[in-house]
Amino acid sequence: VAREVGLLPDEVELYGQTKAKVHLSALKRLKNQPDGKYVVVTGITPTPLGEGKSTTTVGLVQALGAHLHQNVFACVRQPSQGPTFGIKGGAAGGGYCQITPMEEFNLHLTGDIHAITAANNLVAAAVDARIFHELTQTDQVRSFLKLGINKTDPMALTKEEVNLFVRLDIDPGTITWQRVLDTNDRFLRKITIGQSPTEKGFSRMAQFDITVSSEIMAVLALSDGLDDMKKRLGRMVVASSKRGEPVTTDDLGVTGALAVLMRDAVKPNLMQTLEGTPVFVHAGPFANIAHGNSSVLADKIALKLVGKEGFVVTEAGFGADIGMEKFFNIKCRYSGLRPHVVVLVATVRALKMHGGGPAVTAGVPLPKEYMEENLQLLARGCSNLNKQIQNARMFGVPVVVAVNAFKTDTKAELALVVQMAKEAGAFDAVECTHWAEGGKGAVALAQAVQRASQAPSNFRFLYNVELPVIDKIRLIAQQIYGASDIELLPEAQEKVTLYTKQGFGNLPICMAKTHLSLSHDPEQKGAPAGFILPIRDIRASVGAGFLYPLVGTMSTMPGLPTRPCFYDIDLDPVSGEVNGLF
Amino acid sequence: VAREVGLLPDEVELYGQTKAKVHLSALKRLKNQPDGKYVVVTGITPTPLGEGKSTTTVGLVQALGAHLHQNVFACVRQPSQGPTFGIKGGAAGGGYCQITPMEEFNLHLTGDIHAITAANNLVAAAVDARIFHELTQTDQVRSFLKLGINKTDPMALTKEEVNLFVRLDIDPGTITWQRVLDTNDRFLRKITIGQSPTEKGFSRMAQFDITVSSEIMAVLALSDGLDDMKKRLGRMVVASSKRGEPVTTDDLGVTGALAVLMRDAVKPNLMQTLEGTPVFVHAGPFANIAHGNSSVLADKIALKLVGKEGFVVTEAGFGADIGMEKFFNIKCRYSGLRPHVVVLVATVRALKMHGGGPAVTAGVPLPKEYMEENLQLLARGCSNLNKQIQNARMFGVPVVVAVNAFKTDTKAELALVVQMAKEAGAFDAVECTHWAEGGKGAVALAQAVQRASQAPSNFRFLYNVELPVIDKIRLIAQQIYGASDIELLPEAQEKVTLYTKQGFGNLPICMAKTHLSLSHDPEQKGAPAGFILPIRDIRASVGAGFLYPLVGTMSTMPGLPTRPCFYDIDLDPVSGEVNGLF
Repeated sequence: VAREVGLLPDEVELYGQTKAKVHLSALKRLKNQPDGKYVVVTGITPTPLGEGKSTTTVGLVQALGAHLHQNVFACVRQPSQGPTFGIKGGAAGGGYCQITPMEEFNLHLTGDIHAITAANNLVAAAVDARIFHELTQTDQVRSFLKLGINKTDPMALTKEEVNLFVRLDIDPGTITWQRVLDTNDRFLRKITIGQSPTEKGFSRMAQFDITVSSEIMAVLALSDGLDDMKKRLGRMVVASSKRGEPVTTDDLGVTGALAVLMRDAVKPNLMQTLEGTPVFVHAGPFANIAHGNSSVLADKIALKLVGKEGFVVTEAGFGADIGMEKFFNIKCRYSGLRPHVVVLVATVRALKMHGGGPAVTAGVPLPKEYMEENLQLLARGCSNLNKQIQNARMFGVPVVVAVNAFKTDTKAELALVVQMAKEAGAFDAVECTHWAEGGKGAVALAQAVQRASQAPSNFRFLYNVELPVIDKIRLIAQQIYGASDIELLPEAQEKVTLYTKQGFGNLPICMAKTHLSLSHDPEQKGAPAGFILPIRDIRASVGAGFLYPLVGTMSTMPGLPTRPCFYDIDLDPVSGEVNGLF
Repeated sequence: VAREVGLLPDEVELYGQTKAKVHLSALKRLKNQPDGKYVVVTGITPTPLGEGKSTTTVGLVQALGAHLHQNVFACVRQPSQGPTFGIKGGAAGGGYCQITPMEEFNLHLTGDIHAITAANNLVAAAVDARIFHELTQTDQVRSFLKLGINKTDPMALTKEEVNLFVRLDIDPGTITWQRVLDTNDRFLRKITIGQSPTEKGFSRMAQFDITVSSEIMAVLALSDGLDDMKKRLGRMVVASSKRGEPVTTDDLGVTGALAVLMRDAVKPNLMQTLEGTPVFVHAGPFANIAHGNSSVLADKIALKLVGKEGFVVTEAGFGADIGMEKFFNIKCRYSGLRPHVVVLVATVRALKMHGGGPAVTAGVPLPKEYMEENLQLLARGCSNLNKQIQNARMFGVPVVVAVNAFKTDTKAELALVVQMAKEAGAFDAVECTHWAEGGKGAVALAQAVQRASQAPSNFRFLYNVELPVIDKIRLIAQQIYGASDIELLPEAQEKVTLYTKQGFGNLPICMAKTHLSLSHDPEQKGAPAGFILPIRDIRASVGAGFLYPLVGTMSTMPGLPTRPCFYDIDLDPVSGEVNGLF
């Protein structure tokens, strides 16, 4: 695959027989090559079952590549390994539209998430060890010597030596840096640490999050190169000092070590689809407390590799109100890349739910409304489709609606969605059957995308980052979600003041909101309007480069259900084959 | 390298440009090939600085391979990544005897340790989630359905379904399975978990250990193949039920998932030395609570690859009283392999310490006794060398003493060690200068090893596993350590009863003792005698296959010092080079 897509042998590092890492030097070599067409796949507000965004991404590139013979790349997120053993459902696509081998994709891959676990937890250990050593060492001169600094003139100290010497005076109550594991371990959601006598009573409350929620994952996804990644890794704020100043990873002296741990993770992973189309799998930040998009570097390298007439299809997490909004306002802002087409995935199932159909719940059989024709429910539910189309158009990019057909959908239903999408201003709307047919089932979609990519695109951001924090949040809430206003709870208000004072007020906004409604209430389907969006708190990912307002409580550590799917997973000890993964 | 050592292209998976994994199919293909000569490198009781066992291992294979043109392989342990960022000192060897590239060796390598972290913590999450779900679900019938079992006849249930259904009734007070991280994080030594309201008050005390102390690491090191690994992974005991029966990973239904997570880790990693000699880096279990030896599989594949006249040099952790004793009594017992030669590394520095020299402490300049000639101290300290030679000879294997020369050692000192080693019954004793000269400096050692490998070897175990637990412990204490007897504290006595009743009494013994003395007291240098060895407690690694008596308190989670070495580690963002790692 590597040779076919135009990579030189020394730009590729094989990892086993089905994966490779691509050197960033490829980007440098191709810097004068024009970029290809940039397509983002997003969706309407989904049911808890998901509506096939990953499958459509894979189907679209299979159609463009294997059937229409275009140069094409898919860029997708690496899934978290924890949930693989909890509740069924990977992100490799499905049916005849999959990234292969699926077990490599869903498990360790080339170790990028493991590297993030290691880097993240080194920071956490450094924070607590620093507090501990500062509080247990009263004799400054002795520590000075103990630190290995042999100078007597304080002015001769290097920046690193000063950092070593100066007390950071971290206020333990302000620590925002958490430990992470790539395991669904609910008992680590809230813990007390430091209870061994060796820690001399410095215990405190803490928590473990799932690794993909680490800021380092968001840094990886937004970095532009090794140098940029290192700078971002050094800017991460872990706490405030007792004087109210931000304490960064640079202050802890850990930046270089983090960069070393992330040295290989920064290289995108090359895999392929069932039909042999190349795929970059790289970075997988959370779509709520982070921006939920795969890496800037993978997109950039892919855009160079496909060349001017080629296509890069990248997927944004959750629905268009979340993943796509962040794709535009955060990812494209940092990358400088400009999208040509939005593909908006819709299903009859989800639209019926938005029209007032009964709740759709994982693990429970679908109510009959979803198995039989019901044009009324469907038509009503198209309010959500309409709003998400408007959301994409607001950024000035043409929208192609992909109606992902299920076998229970009737012709009339599929036709209705296509019609209503066009009426709502979609550039085109196309029925797709790639799940059952592979790339062949997405050829019409691919052709629509080709046409749309020739249409005028007039990309614009929703907001200027220089606006006050509150104004930026309000703009997203009103324009994208349909809220009438926002309401900041006291904690959020305090953070606006703090972050503005600390100089982080100009960062873009990454909303942490439920993906199950355009509003903050997952029960509100369709296109709710006139609600007040509550902002509970605001946090900062300064290294990644955004503030994230919390709309409600976000779980950052999933658990194992009563019947975890690890029961079904097995290895054939003779053939080495993995069974029961999905 | 892979081709040179006799591997077929489809037996090798490249991982980047300097590492590869070797398929276990190679072992099957070569099963009729005779094994090469099997050499184990061990040492006298070391100072806290270490005496160059890894360097000698690398020097010896460089001499045998690059200078004497023999087929040769080194088999070494993968180091833990945590301490890499804490206190200086890797295990890649040193000077001109290193495994290269050193930063790959010391960091992620091919992700084996990360796989162990993931597998270990999946077990931990499964234990707590199982207890939680059993205690919060009182309606058995509902759980029955919720478990996805659609049968009505209980007799028709498969073993897995029975496990799902039956309450394990884990006694939380008996949980021996701990979570792990490959990070030096002292604040995780003792923690309280389950304090989020979602866990409904089921909080308990727990701890994180460093990943290499996980039983899964010991399982990896002792496994004979994929099938054997899977069986061991399923036999691991995590707790007792309220009825006092052992609860295993198989009971939790997690065996298959563990095998899947460890599918790639089971394949040995191929690297090379500075002089191009092949090296397997595979598994790195703790040398106290585990057996401290690299993998059986790496040794087995290497022995086939070098052929009848070739040499495999494998290293055992700590001194001969610990690593070598476990190499013979645990590793060789499970592998069926029989060693030809023991190489015992000694230094003038350590022997002077055993002769009564002042304390040797990391980070503090060496006292003058170690910088100047002092034959008296040295002669007295040879009591330790003598005892360790006897320890090796007790197993019926010829011993070659490698005197690892430092630049401060005088000719007379080196000659004295050689002379006393021979008088103590070593097959030969040789001065080595490989640190400064590479393989060339170990040619005399290599020649001595060649001669010794032709000498009659009459290998025997120290004890029969069928002996009562207490007798096995006493035999090791008296024969190897020089104790007059052992004393079991009440907790240890209870465990002898428990494990014997549970059917684990016939496992070999893996002593968890300080490596800084032949006795239990690190201050007792030389060859102490007549002491009573206290056994504080006994634990079981049933999957790995040993009981481990605790002689004193073993730290299973290192911390970061005041001046952690991550301060010095940096990445050049342009070249991508790692600086300051050692």
